[in-house]
Amino acid sequence: MTVTRGTDKKVWLDPDPEERGFSRLDAAPFPPFEPGWVWLVGAGPGAPGLLTLLAYHALQTADIVIYDALVNPDVIRWVRPGAQVEFAGKRGGKPSAKQRDISLRLIELAQAGKRVLRLKGGDPLIFGRGAEECETLAAAGVPFRIVPGVSSGAGGLAYAGIPATHRDTNHSVIFLTGHDANGQIPSGVDWRAIATASPVIVMYMAMKNLPGIAERLMTFGRDRADPLAIVSRVSLPDQSVRETTLGEVVCLLREEEPPTPAIIVVGKVANLRQSLNWYVEGLRENSLG
Amino acid sequence: MTVTRGTDKKVWLDPDPEERGFSRLDAAPFPPFEPGWVWLVGAGPGAPGLLTLLAYHALQTADIVIYDALVNPDVIRWVRPGAQVEFAGKRGGKPSAKQRDISLRLIELAQAGKRVLRLKGGDPLIFGRGAEECETLAAAGVPFRIVPGVSSGAGGLAYAGIPATHRDTNHSVIFLTGHDANGQIPSGVDWRAIATASPVIVMYMAMKNLPGIAERLMTFGRDRADPLAIVSRVSLPDQSVRETTLGEVVCLLREEEPPTPAIIVVGKVANLRQSLNWYVEGLRENSLG
Repeated sequence: MTVTRGTDKKVWLDPDPEERGFSRLDAAPFPPFEPGWVWLVGAGPGAPGLLTLLAYHALQTADIVIYDALVNPDVIRWVRPGAQVEFAGKRGGKPSAKQRDISLRLIELAQAGKRVLRLKGGDPLIFGRGAEECETLAAAGVPFRIVPGVSSGAGGLAYAGIPATHRDTNHSVIFLTGHDANGQIPSGVDWRAIATASPVIVMYMAMKNLPGIAERLMTFGRDRADPLAIVSRVSLPDQSVRETTLGEVVCLLREEEPPTPAIIVVGKVANLRQSLNWYVEGLRENSLG
Repeated sequence: MTVTRGTDKKVWLDPDPEERGFSRLDAAPFPPFEPGWVWLVGAGPGAPGLLTLLAYHALQTADIVIYDALVNPDVIRWVRPGAQVEFAGKRGGKPSAKQRDISLRLIELAQAGKRVLRLKGGDPLIFGRGAEECETLAAAGVPFRIVPGVSSGAGGLAYAGIPATHRDTNHSVIFLTGHDANGQIPSGVDWRAIATASPVIVMYMAMKNLPGIAERLMTFGRDRADPLAIVSRVSLPDQSVRETTLGEVVCLLREEEPPTPAIIVVGKVANLRQSLNWYVEGLRENSLG
């Protein structure tokens, strides 16, 4: 291996330079998943190849995996043989009495000495209620680790050829959830400031409330001609992207219902898809990403 | 494997249920890395365990790896034997003539028939100039793929026990870069709107300009008592976190210089670290994450 470097930091060379491939990771010193622990793990936007190494390691060592609706079922095939798998999904921003039940289940399993893998779509701490689950674990004295994942609305947008930032376009980006605990447009939000603070707005779980949100943004001065993209089923073979504008999206939604889950992007970065859309026929058939 | 599910989606079970560990991934149908292609890959915030499976696959198949200063050198040990490694770093928001050179180098190598892995810290499309590199590749007719990574300021903050969102705290979060192309506070930014649009502001590369940014936020009404955390060297064993407030951070910076790179978080979510800080002695010594 030829190493050309501009800094003097030591490069940690592999003990056996002839080894390669995934198999050598079986000997790598990943942190042990101890009995009685909960690992809260992000599964990424969908493509199994976007799991982190730590997430895969957790799938190989957990005693039980409790996963959300947003986790790609193909990822579940990687759970180690003999492990238990439980579905704990909810969808659509409906009021849910289940969050408390899920947290209690995690505590119960950990206190029974299980290695508990709580697997959530995207990143567990970005609109994923992972922080609440960890607070409950901490209060109960259950030790936990958080393994971040690629969030659909951040890195995941790469699969639509849409960068969250571009130096010519924006020095900031706003991530926003499209519904509150009751499924309504979040009421505590300062829509005037949101409309003007950043050239790019990325919305999660906003399809249902999109007409009302678009209206608010335009009322507070956001340009009707601002490009808007709806990216459905991010990073999966059936990903689809609808391109329109803030002013025209309401008409589009009267004609069709883009599949969910979807991420909605407002801003000129959506136009960069014209040159950056690499996830096309021939590539998108691959089930791993 | 016991599968308990609430939906009727098919679970894709592994062909050989007795196999486990990383080694079985060597037979998984990852997308081929073709000669003449550039893969633009995010390496995540630092911990090697936060690489995605696709990123690791790319390290195993690339002919040449061109990496940034923000990439953990420990990740470079995983490059396949025989591959070439080039450092193409820049740091500190200085004006850089090198971006154009880097893009031209990628094109040259791809046109020579190499499998070119461009490895960037965090996520390549979040304040990483990855979109610009891809635009140049597209214009030159060089085929490329983008592999997103965990961004330091989004998922990476999990290692500080700070969630980017919490249902009780914020329905939105702003990501902001602290310097423009000339290393100055970005001038096109509407600081009044930024100050009020979201309860949480996450800043990248903002250490140098932090006093000026903090002043602008307070001038436009942001509470001086708002918690502020400086997270240095996210997810690495020498990660450090300084906790203060928006009003007091200037005094803190007169006394000490927190290590960079660092992510700065403003907002009440920073206080959640008191119960969510799991990355402590005994865990943080592990070099993989």
